[in-house]
Amino acid sequence: MPTIVVDVMPKAELLDPQGKAVAGALARLGHEGFEGVRIGKRFELTVADASEETLAAVKVIADEILSNAVIEDVVGIEVAP
Amino acid sequence: MPTIVVDVMPKAELLDPQGKAVAGALARLGHEGFEGVRIGKRFELTVADASEETLAAVKVIADEILSNAVIEDVVGIEVAP
Repeated sequence: MPTIVVDVMPKAELLDPQGKAVAGALARLGHEGFEGVRIGKRFELTVADASEETLAAVKVIADEILSNAVIEDVVGIEVAP
Repeated sequence: MPTIVVDVMPKAELLDPQGKAVAGALARLGHEGFEGVRIGKRFELTVADASEETLAAVKVIADEILSNAVIEDVVGIEVAP
């Protein structure tokens, strides 16, 4: 069955303390060249069919249910290859 | 600066209660045709350069720091377009 992937990230203008902690850990562990880390969510929705209507429904679901528009952006919706 | 995206998902053979809750909510709210939902993480690493060495370093970091190999799989590492 097809899978639709929805990616949600914290808005760029907001702090991401979880990502900051990981960036700090990378620096402490000696990994150089990482300027920043941000952590979001990846939803994999298994659907009966990946039709145009399903994708339109997923767009609404991504905006209204899977993400919080106050603090997050939906950065991607795609059918997994 | 280039961004490298690392996707981490719970292993397929493990339960994902968070995803199950979302799948239940979708059904309750009248969205049909969704067979399952799984929720993982999306890391965006901002790097000074997206060279082969950086990508190799990110692969190690993804396996050792960003994911827990007992319960999660790294399902994707790619330079964001």
